[in-house]
Amino acid sequence: MNYRIVAKILGSILIYESFLMIIPLAVSVFYMESSYMAFIITMLIMIFFGVILKNTPLNSNTMKLKEGFAIVSFGWLISSLFGCFPFIISGAIPFPIDAFFETVSGFTTTGASILTDIESLPKGILFWRSFTHWIGGMGILVFTVALLPAIGASGFQLFKAESPGPISDKIVPRMKDTAKILYTTYIIITIAETILLMFGGLSLYEALVHTFATVGTGGFSTHNSSIAAFNSTYIYVVIAIFMFMSGVNFSLYYELLKGRWRSVLKDEELRFYSILILLGIVFVSINLFGTIYDSAGESLKQSLFQVVSITTTTGYVTADFDLWPTFSKVLLFLLMFTGGCAGSTGGSIKQVRLLLVLKLVKREFQKIFHPRAIMPLKIEGRSIPSDVVANVSSFFTLYVMLFVLGTAVVSLENISMISAASAVAATLGNIGPGFEIVGATQNYSSFSAPIKLLLSFLMLAGRLELFTIMTLLSPSFWKAER
Amino acid sequence: MNYRIVAKILGSILIYESFLMIIPLAVSVFYMESSYMAFIITMLIMIFFGVILKNTPLNSNTMKLKEGFAIVSFGWLISSLFGCFPFIISGAIPFPIDAFFETVSGFTTTGASILTDIESLPKGILFWRSFTHWIGGMGILVFTVALLPAIGASGFQLFKAESPGPISDKIVPRMKDTAKILYTTYIIITIAETILLMFGGLSLYEALVHTFATVGTGGFSTHNSSIAAFNSTYIYVVIAIFMFMSGVNFSLYYELLKGRWRSVLKDEELRFYSILILLGIVFVSINLFGTIYDSAGESLKQSLFQVVSITTTTGYVTADFDLWPTFSKVLLFLLMFTGGCAGSTGGSIKQVRLLLVLKLVKREFQKIFHPRAIMPLKIEGRSIPSDVVANVSSFFTLYVMLFVLGTAVVSLENISMISAASAVAATLGNIGPGFEIVGATQNYSSFSAPIKLLLSFLMLAGRLELFTIMTLLSPSFWKAER
Repeated sequence: MNYRIVAKILGSILIYESFLMIIPLAVSVFYMESSYMAFIITMLIMIFFGVILKNTPLNSNTMKLKEGFAIVSFGWLISSLFGCFPFIISGAIPFPIDAFFETVSGFTTTGASILTDIESLPKGILFWRSFTHWIGGMGILVFTVALLPAIGASGFQLFKAESPGPISDKIVPRMKDTAKILYTTYIIITIAETILLMFGGLSLYEALVHTFATVGTGGFSTHNSSIAAFNSTYIYVVIAIFMFMSGVNFSLYYELLKGRWRSVLKDEELRFYSILILLGIVFVSINLFGTIYDSAGESLKQSLFQVVSITTTTGYVTADFDLWPTFSKVLLFLLMFTGGCAGSTGGSIKQVRLLLVLKLVKREFQKIFHPRAIMPLKIEGRSIPSDVVANVSSFFTLYVMLFVLGTAVVSLENISMISAASAVAATLGNIGPGFEIVGATQNYSSFSAPIKLLLSFLMLAGRLELFTIMTLLSPSFWKAER
Repeated sequence: MNYRIVAKILGSILIYESFLMIIPLAVSVFYMESSYMAFIITMLIMIFFGVILKNTPLNSNTMKLKEGFAIVSFGWLISSLFGCFPFIISGAIPFPIDAFFETVSGFTTTGASILTDIESLPKGILFWRSFTHWIGGMGILVFTVALLPAIGASGFQLFKAESPGPISDKIVPRMKDTAKILYTTYIIITIAETILLMFGGLSLYEALVHTFATVGTGGFSTHNSSIAAFNSTYIYVVIAIFMFMSGVNFSLYYELLKGRWRSVLKDEELRFYSILILLGIVFVSINLFGTIYDSAGESLKQSLFQVVSITTTTGYVTADFDLWPTFSKVLLFLLMFTGGCAGSTGGSIKQVRLLLVLKLVKREFQKIFHPRAIMPLKIEGRSIPSDVVANVSSFFTLYVMLFVLGTAVVSLENISMISAASAVAATLGNIGPGFEIVGATQNYSSFSAPIKLLLSFLMLAGRLELFTIMTLLSPSFWKAER
């Protein structure tokens, strides 16, 4: 492993992160909050370490897969480690493990919080908290790649290790251009939602903060009761639409921009994602109508918001779904394992993987009666290579394994099985709220420090598509290259 | 589809089942219970329909895969349908859907019961109830095959459709001989356990009834409190040992008989199964010691019995594990998804499949650093063909899907999520007890009729390795052959 190049790039990441902190610093100064000092101190620390790391003398410029994995994994880790300083220094979250959990939750766009009273915190701090969603949403690394011509061709390896979904297509041949296109789309969507939320009566500050969490499918709010605090159908609908949009493969927006409507409409994953959400909304609405809400409209509204929020792994809430009938709760729990489309900011298993394993099962049934037929799996008419199929099967199994082992460990806290299982599902899938003690109106504050660290690891594992970060746990990763 | 040959063989199955009923009839007569009439009436009905079906004139003798699947699936269904008559006629279980559920639970060796007071029932009826476990354990069809030379070579197709596990080896070339060997082993183990239980002070009747449920990995008892009623460490240990033995691939006993010790000790699945059980016992014991039991011995004993019982999918209980700490409960819940070895009487996913998907995940990690290497999956040094790997992945996915969809439907009863999920896991995996409303001291009586039918379907699906019975749901199955 070329440790030096890894250190060098981690240095750049730190420096970029310190530049990004100028924005929450400005917010702090604007609102004349004393917490502005916390940002200045953090930025100085980051620049100090960043410059040292960046000036690591290189023996060689070679960067292989191992280095790529190390940069992605440690990049997220180091960003969270330094990113939590403002919380600690300002006293907003005095306990370092809590601050780390909150920052990992931000960057991984999870939205799980250890805060019991969000509203008491300074505006600049809350701005930074939500801003981490926005940064994490598109991937710190895509960002870094777009601004780091130094890495050159190796950039694609980083992108591949980080980009969500099994098949990472380059939209345009040059990595740097791809990053720019995705980034521009991201900014346009951000601006659009901010304006629409301001039309609904939100201040620029509130609109921005909630937009960051929506487009990054994060879920942090400035209100203790999340989106329910606005109590406005307009706001609910705008956020729901943008949550849905943020769960769509971003490359489809580029297709739209190029006028390729037909290929967007024919996108199999988009169809699957839309149908799944639609079915979820219909079943939950019917279940809620008459049991929880007397009005069909209210049932539909609450069902729609929660189903979209959970499926896209955002985790915003407008109702305490822990009080809903078991059927609705089970459906929401299951939707925690679906997630956004590949190439979106959503987490969890991802729609295309589910589509693929369902096709795998279907083929197995067909094989029973045609044992000698060769039936390649196809998505959009293109055969999926058998190694991708094996990878997706393994991903699915590994996801189930992490969920299952995580639940076992978390259950050592002696909380209810549903609390333990949903806390793991909600962190591994980058969703945020779960059920019971981590339910819609609850938070993650009551867990012990080791469990908070475990859940932080699960958030990172989920965000980095499991294999990336888990390779760091394998001894062969650290073996010297021959 | 050659409906005629299917009907003919189903007729034979019914006639054999009626012969098997002579034993519970004898028990009824011996104890001078009025329920003996229920058996006589049932036997007459079965012989009547059996003879009619058996005399179906054949157009052709051809039997293909479709016919094999139909015979296996309908064989289990028809056995349960007629097998529940004694319960209904005797008045022991007056409601037909309850009686059907109980009989399916018996034949599939699940052991889930709708009875609230088992002890009030006649001995002959309870004998039949447990005897269904024994019959189901080795498979009604292996039984029928061994005695039905008429089917000849096609017998192997039946066996393949029914035998548990992904790789069905014929131990000896001739199907009939294989069946005889398995059957003989089964009888020897049955006699051994019966004698050992009688040494522990049980009457021949009690020893037999509990042996049937142990070797079939069923779980029906004659006591409301299951095995806890005996309150004897000797009995606990004997039953635990035989549960463990019944979860082992039966062909290994043939190897032992042939003196091939080494190949048994090197059996990868057996090792995996033993290690998993050992780990389960250790973790649960440690968790129980000090929290539930003050004595280490008691913790070990209760942990051992419950872990072996759940892992082998027997479902006998000696303690109300619903009162255990969450960690132990989560581990037991997870063990519900493991099951016995392939070729054992245990249900659920089966150890060899878990071993294979774990190897699949491991290979995926290796592939990251050696993307071009070709790494076949191996079990005991033999490469597993890629279509078997795909089949196992699909099985795993389908199992999860059935669990998940089943849980959603059962949750319509508005019971707790854990009740719904564990009821589905415990029926699909042919275990028996679950948690909360279907917990160790509870039963399945409170479910509505449609849910009882759904759970019966899941028991059959689980017992017949998912694909077999689910092919019946596919329209292409019923299409006329060209």
